[in-house]
Amino acid sequence: MLESMDRNQITEQIIAARLAKGLSWQELADAIGKPVVWTTSALLGQQPIPAELGQTLAGLLGLDPAVVPVLAAVPMRGAAATPPTDPTIYRLYEAVGVYGPALKELIHEQFGDGIMSAINFSVDLQRKAHPGGDRVVITLDGKFLPYEWNSAD
Amino acid sequence: MLESMDRNQITEQIIAARLAKGLSWQELADAIGKPVVWTTSALLGQQPIPAELGQTLAGLLGLDPAVVPVLAAVPMRGAAATPPTDPTIYRLYEAVGVYGPALKELIHEQFGDGIMSAINFSVDLQRKAHPGGDRVVITLDGKFLPYEWNSAD
Amino acid sequence: MLESMDRNQITEQIIAARLAKGLSWQELADAIGKPVVWTTSALLGQQPIPAELGQTLAGLLGLDPAVVPVLAAVPMRGAAATPPTDPTIYRLYEAVGVYGPALKELIHEQFGDGIMSAINFSVDLQRKAHPGGDRVVITLDGKFLPYEWNSAD
Amino acid sequence: MLESMDRNQITEQIIAARLAKGLSWQELADAIGKPVVWTTSALLGQQPIPAELGQTLAGLLGLDPAVVPVLAAVPMRGAAATPPTDPTIYRLYEAVGVYGPALKELIHEQFGDGIMSAINFSVDLQRKAHPGGDRVVITLDGKFLPYEWNSAD
Amino acid sequence: MLESMDRNQITEQIIAARLAKGLSWQELADAIGKPVVWTTSALLGQQPIPAELGQTLAGLLGLDPAVVPVLAAVPMRGAAATPPTDPTIYRLYEAVGVYGPALKELIHEQFGDGIMSAINFSVDLQRKAHPGGDRVVITLDGKFLPYEWNSAD
Amino acid sequence: MLESMDRNQITEQIIAARLAKGLSWQELADAIGKPVVWTTSALLGQQPIPAELGQTLAGLLGLDPAVVPVLAAVPMRGAAATPPTDPTIYRLYEAVGVYGPALKELIHEQFGDGIMSAINFSVDLQRKAHPGGDRVVITLDGKFLPYEWNSAD
Amino acid sequence: MLESMDRNQITEQIIAARLAKGLSWQELADAIGKPVVWTTSALLGQQPIPAELGQTLAGLLGLDPAVVPVLAAVPMRGAAATPPTDPTIYRLYEAVGVYGPALKELIHEQFGDGIMSAINFSVDLQRKAHPGGDRVVITLDGKFLPYEWNSAD
Amino acid sequence: MLESMDRNQITEQIIAARLAKGLSWQELADAIGKPVVWTTSALLGQQPIPAELGQTLAGLLGLDPAVVPVLAAVPMRGAAATPPTDPTIYRLYEAVGVYGPALKELIHEQFGDGIMSAINFSVDLQRKAHPGGDRVVITLDGKFLPYEWNSAD
Amino acid sequence: MLESMDRNQITEQIIAARLAKGLSWQELADAIGKPVVWTTSALLGQQPIPAELGQTLAGLLGLDPAVVPVLAAVPMRGAAATPPTDPTIYRLYEAVGVYGPALKELIHEQFGDGIMSAINFSVDLQRKAHPGGDRVVITLDGKFLPYEWNSAD
Amino acid sequence: MLESMDRNQITEQIIAARLAKGLSWQELADAIGKPVVWTTSALLGQQPIPAELGQTLAGLLGLDPAVVPVLAAVPMRGAAATPPTDPTIYRLYEAVGVYGPALKELIHEQFGDGIMSAINFSVDLQRKAHPGGDRVVITLDGKFLPYEWNSAD
Repeated sequence: MLESMDRNQITEQIIAARLAKGLSWQELADAIGKPVVWTTSALLGQQPIPAELGQTLAGLLGLDPAVVPVLAAVPMRGAAATPPTDPTIYRLYEAVGVYGPALKELIHEQFGDGIMSAINFSVDLQRKAHPGGDRVVITLDGKFLPYEWNSAD
Repeated sequence: MLESMDRNQITEQIIAARLAKGLSWQELADAIGKPVVWTTSALLGQQPIPAELGQTLAGLLGLDPAVVPVLAAVPMRGAAATPPTDPTIYRLYEAVGVYGPALKELIHEQFGDGIMSAINFSVDLQRKAHPGGDRVVITLDGKFLPYEWNSAD
Repeated sequence: MLESMDRNQITEQIIAARLAKGLSWQELADAIGKPVVWTTSALLGQQPIPAELGQTLAGLLGLDPAVVPVLAAVPMRGAAATPPTDPTIYRLYEAVGVYGPALKELIHEQFGDGIMSAINFSVDLQRKAHPGGDRVVITLDGKFLPYEWNSAD
Repeated sequence: MLESMDRNQITEQIIAARLAKGLSWQELADAIGKPVVWTTSALLGQQPIPAELGQTLAGLLGLDPAVVPVLAAVPMRGAAATPPTDPTIYRLYEAVGVYGPALKELIHEQFGDGIMSAINFSVDLQRKAHPGGDRVVITLDGKFLPYEWNSAD
Repeated sequence: MLESMDRNQITEQIIAARLAKGLSWQELADAIGKPVVWTTSALLGQQPIPAELGQTLAGLLGLDPAVVPVLAAVPMRGAAATPPTDPTIYRLYEAVGVYGPALKELIHEQFGDGIMSAINFSVDLQRKAHPGGDRVVITLDGKFLPYEWNSAD
Repeated sequence: MLESMDRNQITEQIIAARLAKGLSWQELADAIGKPVVWTTSALLGQQPIPAELGQTLAGLLGLDPAVVPVLAAVPMRGAAATPPTDPTIYRLYEAVGVYGPALKELIHEQFGDGIMSAINFSVDLQRKAHPGGDRVVITLDGKFLPYEWNSAD
Repeated sequence: MLESMDRNQITEQIIAARLAKGLSWQELADAIGKPVVWTTSALLGQQPIPAELGQTLAGLLGLDPAVVPVLAAVPMRGAAATPPTDPTIYRLYEAVGVYGPALKELIHEQFGDGIMSAINFSVDLQRKAHPGGDRVVITLDGKFLPYEWNSAD
Repeated sequence: MLESMDRNQITEQIIAARLAKGLSWQELADAIGKPVVWTTSALLGQQPIPAELGQTLAGLLGLDPAVVPVLAAVPMRGAAATPPTDPTIYRLYEAVGVYGPALKELIHEQFGDGIMSAINFSVDLQRKAHPGGDRVVITLDGKFLPYEWNSAD
Repeated sequence: MLESMDRNQITEQIIAARLAKGLSWQELADAIGKPVVWTTSALLGQQPIPAELGQTLAGLLGLDPAVVPVLAAVPMRGAAATPPTDPTIYRLYEAVGVYGPALKELIHEQFGDGIMSAINFSVDLQRKAHPGGDRVVITLDGKFLPYEWNSAD
Repeated sequence: MLESMDRNQITEQIIAARLAKGLSWQELADAIGKPVVWTTSALLGQQPIPAELGQTLAGLLGLDPAVVPVLAAVPMRGAAATPPTDPTIYRLYEAVGVYGPALKELIHEQFGDGIMSAINFSVDLQRKAHPGGDRVVITLDGKFLPYEWNSAD
């Protein structure tokens, strides 16, 4: 039996196993036929992984099959450290601090009162060439949700 | 003379004047020929505004001309509240928490050690139609900066 | 002209004027034909108030008409103090701490991966009789939003 | 003998065992004849579980019988992370931030000075159909406690 | 008209007026026939003060009569600074840190699962002689509230 | 030899052993002839326990005799979590927030500048009957210490 | 009448007036015949100043006589910023972090369980010559208070 | 080989071994001919301990000789918890809060702009008799360092 | 008379006046014959400014001469916001987070136990050409201070 | 197989092994032909270490070869504790607090709007002689990055 192994411990095992086996995130995504951002976030503990995909991934990474139902459960999402200390992640956080209030104003101007959903949502990352140096282009794509005062009855 | 007016006080005046005059952010951006995300962030205190553009904006909003050199100075950037309490801004912050570590991994996989610059950078916001409801599409576009151990000599 | 009055200052004026005039929240809600929880949260600075309703409320409360466009703008939502020190509000916060993880599990068990929207959402408060003492019954009613990996294209 | 096992460690065992055995929270609640929100919160460490119920649950989940008296003791309640990073729990927290002050005002308007008890209290979660999509309906139901300056003598 | 005066500003006026007029808290309590701990906490902004008592106190302290309805409203309770920096208040806070877990255990041992109410509650302060030096004796007296899973229906 | 066992680990053992053996805090206090609040706080790691009493308690609880000198050392006192999340302890903390400033004023009014000692101090907890429901009565009893500017020479 | 002036505002006036008049802290202490550390801390808002001394100081500093009863009241003590950002104050704070646990151990070794009082207490600051450069010698001198479980009855 | 033992783990071993062997801090200081405050702070992980002294101490306390080079390395200094919860340490911290700004002013008045060094520094603790009760006298003795704008070239 | 003007208010006036008059920091530094980093930090409130220099600067900036003694007093140093939100300042802070532990190790390796003084210290900023783009070169230059256990006697 | 070893655990092993083997950071840097600041920061977990260098270092330090791919992966950078408690690191942090805003102003004055990169960056540490005592000279050398609103298309 798997003794109280939680999702965080499995995430640590995945990180170590991926490096030890020399697998790329793209190879893992291709193996299960899913977008690479989704796959990476799922393997880092942020998405439930359907059991049949979890079996494939556990096989590739050499993990105990007992991890499959834990990977399939909805995890506690979100990163604890605020603000993040890692420079690569911090730049995303900085962009929210500098441009967040402007994006709020423009969402309201173009759509009305509401939000960009972070649930009906996807993220894409592309490398694009540019004469001044290649660029990281990250697209946040979420359904607009208007503030609506609805109830079941 | 303008007695010690600082950038934050001018930002508050801009917010009040824009509403009182019924101007949209897009109209203000068009008046100075700049992208609307940049213009909105600048009027919210996050970018220096060149003096000739500052004069145009001060005129449109009915501000004292003495604000122009303050608008032209490089401001203290960034929002203090962490995490943000406003739901529209919070969703951006949540996306960084849930997807930030995955984006870090993929930047490293596709580009090597380094970051997406938040300085050589632009942000775009588009409304896109979708059968399941219109979507907010935000593009973060920054130059890749490799970790390089350089020095002047 | 209204000199840089922001939404927080208007909220303070509303709170003082309501007490000075002896108006109940219910009377203010009835005057504009809106639910009382929505009206109270709006007057406390958490919802944009359409201009025609804002005029009615400003008239009842004796506020300067210049507040109407500020009330009509989408506000910065959310309360800063965490945790709240006021006992009446704290009990709501305590309920989230004690029952939040259980509600998360049951939302996932009954609906799958996703959230209860706080945007397509309403709140109701009722007084209900009970032999052991009258009860406060608060209903949080939000659309289920499944985690979906969608994009505009 | 059970070596210093505390309630948090037992909670981790319960979470792992439930997934490994494929039991739903509803099945566990039905097994002991208790409401599902109460049962889930209790198994997540927020309620004392009477010994006879604890024996049933320990049997179903395959736990060491030595956990029974620990489950029966009153636990340290409440979740540490504030604000919560998980989106499903965060939406509840956001609702308290946005609607908490309005609920406070209305409790005072309808009941007088006092609070909704979070102790003489229950929580219910229902799935309700709606043309715009099924809804999560959460009912917080607590006894009104008036501020009263009483003493034993 | 009183321009947006809030309870905090009135509390500051009360503190200054009491010192300027040389009134003791006991004299203020005697003037309205209420316990001195309640009266002091009320004048420091922690309790609503019924209008007729508010008029008496405003008269004694020389405050504008417009403060009476604000004093009569239920205030936002609780002190923000945690932990308190003032040594006299800190010692109370320290006592909660050192003895709080023990009091929790003994409440459970003597009463079962539940709490001492801080709402149906009173506080008394007495000076008592002792050969080793006079003692401050503070009595916290609250109704026991058992954890009960009740609902309105 | 006891390998680096610290007081916190011993406290966890005590909590587990007490439940496993079904001993009440009162029985443990009676066994050493000490007040029950003191005994409970001591067993929860807040007081040094003289060696002869420590031997008695270790015997009753079935602990390794090597814990005795660790129990006899003065511990690091105080609880880390502020504010406490447990409702039973939180109510004590809330009382300090709501009534602390009033108690400070009245200590000064009745005794002059100074504090209630939390060192030359005791705490008592009593169950008292009341027509409205039994009450928890907690007495904090500390020596008054006047602010005095003294020095050794 | 003095409109709601609080101790913090008076402290700011004292700081400005002292610099404008070119008075040293020692001169102010000499004028009232009190130790200079006590006088400085009192003028910075940390001690009540008896009315006759307050009159002398208000006269020297050119303050409104209405400040005298506010200076004579027991203030809210303690500095909010933790840790302090000023290097001169930070070094004291650093010394507590580096040497505090050792001082705790030695107080217990030399005196038994208890504390150095910060109430029956004085602080002295001396300049002492030393071949390696003059030294700041700060003496903290407080009565030892043994942990004693006493009560009034 | 010593498996990744760090200074914090060695400090925990020292604390346990000292109690188990019944050694006083003074005896340990005498064994190495060093001041007792320095020795105690060093054994609590705040000073590097020269190898020959480390050998003596490891011998007395029965520690593995492999700890000697770890003890001889410069440690990460300073205590994490701010503010400290332990009453004995808290009183030192409180003294910095109440008297820190006054000491800053007097250092500047008596020495000019600069600080008391916490590096070229010593701490002494003495027990002194006093008719009102024995006193703890702590002397902080640091070199005055003037603010000087110097550079190597 | 200058009514309670404090250093922070003067700093705000300096910032506004410098922009209104179009003076560079270098021009202000040249006017008083001081290094530009020192001058800028002094005008931003971090250094005392000798009275004769303060008079020159007040004249250039058009400030009230009453600011001169306030500028000449030693200020409360240090910035409150941690971590800083402004990207330009944040990069310095990030460098301390990423390289601080390494610099600590190397100071100890090259100098022994001790610190780089931030008091006997200077900072220089240079623009240096580089084929890959001009570089900002910041030199921190502080006296090494060895940890020494000295005392006045 | 290496069981879930993460970078932090390897860093702890490196620290222990370096002391046990008596290797200096300079010797480790020389062994791989890299600057000593870079090497130290890399071994403390802040830089990816190319596999061939990682093999050399693992060999010198006696680490398991399985650490090599973990050392070669890009780490989570940055130190968590803010502000740092260690005096040697704190002085760097203090310098950012005292001089950061001035450096920001001067970067803008000499280069325009932008930042000193902390990515295209190096750090050097030198010991320099000075009549007043040897000095630690730390050079931060980063490419100037102008704020530029660029995009890939």
